[in-house]
Amino acid sequence: MKEFNEEDIKIIEHLADEHNAEGARAEIAGLHPADIAEILRRLPLRDAEWVFNLLDDTEEKADVIMELDEEDRKKLLEGMEPEQIGHFIDLLDTDDAVDLIQELDKEDREEVIQHIDDVEQAGDIVDLLQYDEDTAGGLMGTEMIEVNENLSMPECIDEMRRQAEEIEDIYNIYVVDDDGRLKGVLPLKTMITAPSASKIKHVMERDPVSVRTDTPIEDVAIDFEKYDLVAMPVVDSIGRLAGQITVDDVMDEVREQSERDYQLASGLSSDVDAGDSVWEQTKARLPWLLIGIIGGIVNSLILGGFEAQIQAVTALAIFIPLIGGTGGNVGVQASAIVVQGLANGRLDLKNSARQIGREVLVALLNAIVISSVVFCYVMLTQSELRWVVATSVASSLFAVVIFATIFGTLVPLTLERLKINPALATGPFIQITNDVVGLLIYVGMSTLMLVKLTGV
Amino acid sequence: MKEFNEEDIKIIEHLADEHNAEGARAEIAGLHPADIAEILRRLPLRDAEWVFNLLDDTEEKADVIMELDEEDRKKLLEGMEPEQIGHFIDLLDTDDAVDLIQELDKEDREEVIQHIDDVEQAGDIVDLLQYDEDTAGGLMGTEMIEVNENLSMPECIDEMRRQAEEIEDIYNIYVVDDDGRLKGVLPLKTMITAPSASKIKHVMERDPVSVRTDTPIEDVAIDFEKYDLVAMPVVDSIGRLAGQITVDDVMDEVREQSERDYQLASGLSSDVDAGDSVWEQTKARLPWLLIGIIGGIVNSLILGGFEAQIQAVTALAIFIPLIGGTGGNVGVQASAIVVQGLANGRLDLKNSARQIGREVLVALLNAIVISSVVFCYVMLTQSELRWVVATSVASSLFAVVIFATIFGTLVPLTLERLKINPALATGPFIQITNDVVGLLIYVGMSTLMLVKLTGV
Repeated sequence: MKEFNEEDIKIIEHLADEHNAEGARAEIAGLHPADIAEILRRLPLRDAEWVFNLLDDTEEKADVIMELDEEDRKKLLEGMEPEQIGHFIDLLDTDDAVDLIQELDKEDREEVIQHIDDVEQAGDIVDLLQYDEDTAGGLMGTEMIEVNENLSMPECIDEMRRQAEEIEDIYNIYVVDDDGRLKGVLPLKTMITAPSASKIKHVMERDPVSVRTDTPIEDVAIDFEKYDLVAMPVVDSIGRLAGQITVDDVMDEVREQSERDYQLASGLSSDVDAGDSVWEQTKARLPWLLIGIIGGIVNSLILGGFEAQIQAVTALAIFIPLIGGTGGNVGVQASAIVVQGLANGRLDLKNSARQIGREVLVALLNAIVISSVVFCYVMLTQSELRWVVATSVASSLFAVVIFATIFGTLVPLTLERLKINPALATGPFIQITNDVVGLLIYVGMSTLMLVKLTGV
Repeated sequence: MKEFNEEDIKIIEHLADEHNAEGARAEIAGLHPADIAEILRRLPLRDAEWVFNLLDDTEEKADVIMELDEEDRKKLLEGMEPEQIGHFIDLLDTDDAVDLIQELDKEDREEVIQHIDDVEQAGDIVDLLQYDEDTAGGLMGTEMIEVNENLSMPECIDEMRRQAEEIEDIYNIYVVDDDGRLKGVLPLKTMITAPSASKIKHVMERDPVSVRTDTPIEDVAIDFEKYDLVAMPVVDSIGRLAGQITVDDVMDEVREQSERDYQLASGLSSDVDAGDSVWEQTKARLPWLLIGIIGGIVNSLILGGFEAQIQAVTALAIFIPLIGGTGGNVGVQASAIVVQGLANGRLDLKNSARQIGREVLVALLNAIVISSVVFCYVMLTQSELRWVVATSVASSLFAVVIFATIFGTLVPLTLERLKINPALATGPFIQITNDVVGLLIYVGMSTLMLVKLTGV
């Protein structure tokens, strides 16, 4: 397959600047639509538009559009008439078409749909638009091979041949009854090896893995991974075949979901990528940083009430970062395990009680090790009032580790119960909360110790 | 499809305790191997072994084994003879067989391989074992349909029918020349719609996307996602078809890789899951917590040298958590963007200079906003020496944000260059380093300000 490298992109940019259409066409000829999309993504918008218009095949243009990121696609479509967009949609698979329409501004959608020439395609798209984006119905397409269970194998092959004309990739052959209810799947292997006299219903695999149109996307992804599927039928509430979900869309979902979780855990509030503009990157980062600043200010207020104790025993001040940091780290670990368990299906609300119990034990083990280590360290290195400092620091650490672990476990579980993305509870949120709580515990403990042990 | 729920697991556990084989067999009959594996995973080991032995079909046993996690599989295989394991391997696809053998202890591998009855299967496995696990060769299997380019369509269908007997799922039909070099792919659609008189080489798709046996797994995953593939041919250094990689294996890789990155970002040092034992969970968490403690101790040493200044202006102590926390947050954000960009292919070492430039600008923007906000806050709320405190805190924050962003960008890029997993540089590592550096900057700045502005 023809490939391209950094050098080629520079050449194309140069050709675009010179408006050398012939040269640029030769450079991109024979490239896969995904590769052309990548080149467009790396070019300045004006050059990208120019190169895009060099493609003379409308189908290739439509393919390239679908390979772009949502943002780049938006920019490119903004310069186009609804009529042109309608033509592209005519050529797309229905699932891609629906995605594209949903990305348009609400007022443009109607007009674009009016410009889809193929009435059947338009009807399928209007139907698909009814489904929630985060369900199987929102992910499925209607391009698939569907045969009646009563056909014989030769009839089935004729029927396939007829339907195949409108379908780009064939994954499965779905078998339905006279009412359109899904009855089975005919694997390609069976189609090749079954004796030609057989009726489909006698050689098909009955009871295939399927989902309903309202199944959440995360559950669809878990099924694909669990059963190693490449495509899966979607049925309506009375079992009629409604569409098909293919593995490429699921893989995109898995990647997007894990990137989203990872970003939330890292304090990035919206979807950003390494190539995004300075402004987009700042927008994604500043909110969490400002929340962190508020956390820091709350900490300063807590410590403001602690000034007398610090005046009395300055050594207490030097362990402040240790307490908050440990609480933050412990909380992030606990929440990460819960979020990941919920994402990969290992954990659900039904078996969460065991997880909480396990976490309490883990917290105890960690707390014992950490507070012992730190207690010894303080005793060995401090001179002034070392009992007060060592006991305050070690007992605060113990309490912080226990609190932060339980808090880090419960918050994502609670969010899941409230149907909010539990990944929101990872990273900075847990870090900052535990930092503040840790400091409160420390201030409380050391004030108590000071009063108890020295009478200050 | 038959499904199971929490209730069923309790019933099976109960039946196992009673050794009621008939009842347990009825419970698991008709379940998918992946579901049986999930039930085994949730049962105590002894019960799991008992249920596993109720399966009387060796092929079903082999399928269930491959659906288990590596750890659970190990436990189950430990109780078996090499001969029995050899029988299972006979029935597995070669890629799964190789995975299973690689999980065995070195000394057991030879013996198990001796017990594979099918000589062809054994030969393929021995060949596949030569490849590095992290390359396309280590991921591929040898089960695929391979036809000569000079066949006619009817000959091709006969050949497929012959080969299909040994292959469970058919994804692609690969076309090779007389020397076995990959020449093209025959999509199922073409096979159905092409006129039967055509020769394969005239209707096949030429130049299909392929990888070499030594292509790293991450690049394979990027190609699958980019080109929306369900299977991909693997060729050797002179272009001969060597095997096939299927999308289910790639999806597992993508999930595992993102889970690994997410865990590293969250301070989990080895692979843990929500269901793992208390001991495994503690083992995965304690190392990073102890590193955090060391960071905290380093901080206490830095602050120890700062006691005189704190004695002079106690207000300086109360902003300590703010400085370290912000440095940590900024660094984690920057490193997360780099790690994710490297994982999804958006960023590579060749285009990293632009990323660094962009990060410097993002850092400046964030630094200006954050230090202005905090400067105003301190000026409005502090009374004692407020110019000293406000200037120290704001200028330290400014310096910390710039440093932490650049550091967070450069460290993962450097690791990538050294071929070390860049995700190691996220989460706690960056957090702790920036916490320490932030504090150093703060101590330095405020000492300087004190001397300059007050002459203390």
